[in-house]
Amino acid sequence: MNILNRFQSLVSDEILAVENLMRQQAQGYNDDLQAALDHLISSGGKRIRPNITLLVGKLLNGDIERLITLSAAIELLHTATLVHDDLIDGSLLRRGIPTLNSKWSPAATVLTGDFMFAKAAKLAADTNSIPVMKLFANTLGTIVNGEIAQMFSSHCVGEIEMYYERIYAKTASLFETSTKAAAMISNANRTQKEYLRQFGYELGIAFQIIDDVLDFTSNQEKLGKPVGGDLRLGLITLPAIIYFEKNKNENLTKEFFKFDCNPPIDVLEILIQNIRNSSAIQESFEKANSHIEFCLKALHHLPSGIERDALEELACFVTQRTI
Amino acid sequence: MNILNRFQSLVSDEILAVENLMRQQAQGYNDDLQAALDHLISSGGKRIRPNITLLVGKLLNGDIERLITLSAAIELLHTATLVHDDLIDGSLLRRGIPTLNSKWSPAATVLTGDFMFAKAAKLAADTNSIPVMKLFANTLGTIVNGEIAQMFSSHCVGEIEMYYERIYAKTASLFETSTKAAAMISNANRTQKEYLRQFGYELGIAFQIIDDVLDFTSNQEKLGKPVGGDLRLGLITLPAIIYFEKNKNENLTKEFFKFDCNPPIDVLEILIQNIRNSSAIQESFEKANSHIEFCLKALHHLPSGIERDALEELACFVTQRTI
Repeated sequence: MNILNRFQSLVSDEILAVENLMRQQAQGYNDDLQAALDHLISSGGKRIRPNITLLVGKLLNGDIERLITLSAAIELLHTATLVHDDLIDGSLLRRGIPTLNSKWSPAATVLTGDFMFAKAAKLAADTNSIPVMKLFANTLGTIVNGEIAQMFSSHCVGEIEMYYERIYAKTASLFETSTKAAAMISNANRTQKEYLRQFGYELGIAFQIIDDVLDFTSNQEKLGKPVGGDLRLGLITLPAIIYFEKNKNENLTKEFFKFDCNPPIDVLEILIQNIRNSSAIQESFEKANSHIEFCLKALHHLPSGIERDALEELACFVTQRTI
Repeated sequence: MNILNRFQSLVSDEILAVENLMRQQAQGYNDDLQAALDHLISSGGKRIRPNITLLVGKLLNGDIERLITLSAAIELLHTATLVHDDLIDGSLLRRGIPTLNSKWSPAATVLTGDFMFAKAAKLAADTNSIPVMKLFANTLGTIVNGEIAQMFSSHCVGEIEMYYERIYAKTASLFETSTKAAAMISNANRTQKEYLRQFGYELGIAFQIIDDVLDFTSNQEKLGKPVGGDLRLGLITLPAIIYFEKNKNENLTKEFFKFDCNPPIDVLEILIQNIRNSSAIQESFEKANSHIEFCLKALHHLPSGIERDALEELACFVTQRTI
């Protein structure tokens, strides 16, 4: 049993129940909509958010049925945001599988995302917790506002503060919600809630940093898109921020910013190679690891047990994953 | 004081509070998002849904603050669906005012709609009523499913049953929610809830039939788009259903269906004129009036008072409006 299996196997039955509940949301609705939801759910993903929610909830002896409902709400919300993201970015593949927008019209894709928002909200309401509902709605607001801010601000800014704001909105906010909401419906006390919030936040930040590192260090086959995809879109993530900071006066750096983050393709290709081969990669890893350390520190304030061990392993897995 | 003013003036202060609450939802978020929300809210509309919710709630002595919150949730949900609808239909004007998608990219328009869904859900949660939350989420599911069904089914069907299904999803479902949810937070008894549901349902059906009639009988200036817009999109509404039924064997009818509801423009123009001048218009009005009768019948089972009188006037206004 490897590290990956340990934290997954502890809640594998519940994850199946979560997936079934997600699929059920389209029952009785339009056939094409059902097919789309099936496709999206079968396309998988690591189910890391429901994994976290279930482990936190079980650690605190929360009610399993409510935790499954909450996990399905969170994963459906996550999937819905990806549906609209892929449409907006024009992405044709995700995890190597054709996106919905690669097969359907923009109109049908927008509406399918909307339907999933509706059903995610319905599942959140099914937890019968008003605080969970409010947290849930606010998190969607944060995620979407982050995307709008990114769209309207000049992309071409390599500031670490803005990077952190962006990855909070994009990823850490929903990780934080995965732990906070699990704490809410499991009657955690105030201190536990705060430590769980920290755990979720730090884990989410680390997760996104690693995602951004892998965008440089992985290969096209694993990514399902060209290496350096973010930089190709003019988006400066942590490895690039560190690299540019260290190579301020290099011609390539100047060229990149001179063209408002949209330089000729040959400049971009060399830059991506340079970043791949630079110490910025290792330094980004170390940054992610320092967030994992904070995350584990928060975790150790919670009751010990197999679920806490599994959450620890899950946190360590985040920086060790290659996809 | 005319009929229009009567039902509006009774809750005019609350409607202002509803609009303020809607505007507040973007506070602290991205500036462009705030501007977009301001634009959408200033573009107005009749605020008929919040009007209904407020009058029903006041009739039942519901808490005004909660009713304002609920009304803002409903109107924001309605506005969000219009934002995505206008994008999908490529509409450049609504109520004679430029739509969001006429000024913004599709990406920004999708995300603004998403943000409004998030804030509508947040406001619904702020009513602190789990049943309202569930109803709210299910209604969004119904609305979106209706649009998806319309998109994937052959449009070119002139069946009355499908028409009723479509206008329920499109309009009557949210009218029904406007009355049901007001009843829920105003501690209505079971019988009152059922009569209020009927009131909302019948009013919504009548409202949409009149909308579909006005699409033929109004003028381009008032509509902000060419007369017969639905038929131009291959969408058969009640006046067309009645007309085609009466003129089954006419060449124009055959031509229309031969081209799968997308005939040459000259055929379309004559058909639109013919429908305008046919008895199908009057018969559609009568159909709408019969729904208003059902709606008033349900209303008369509720406590009498100025709010009930105002709701009666509002119902009558629906079939008398010209825009």
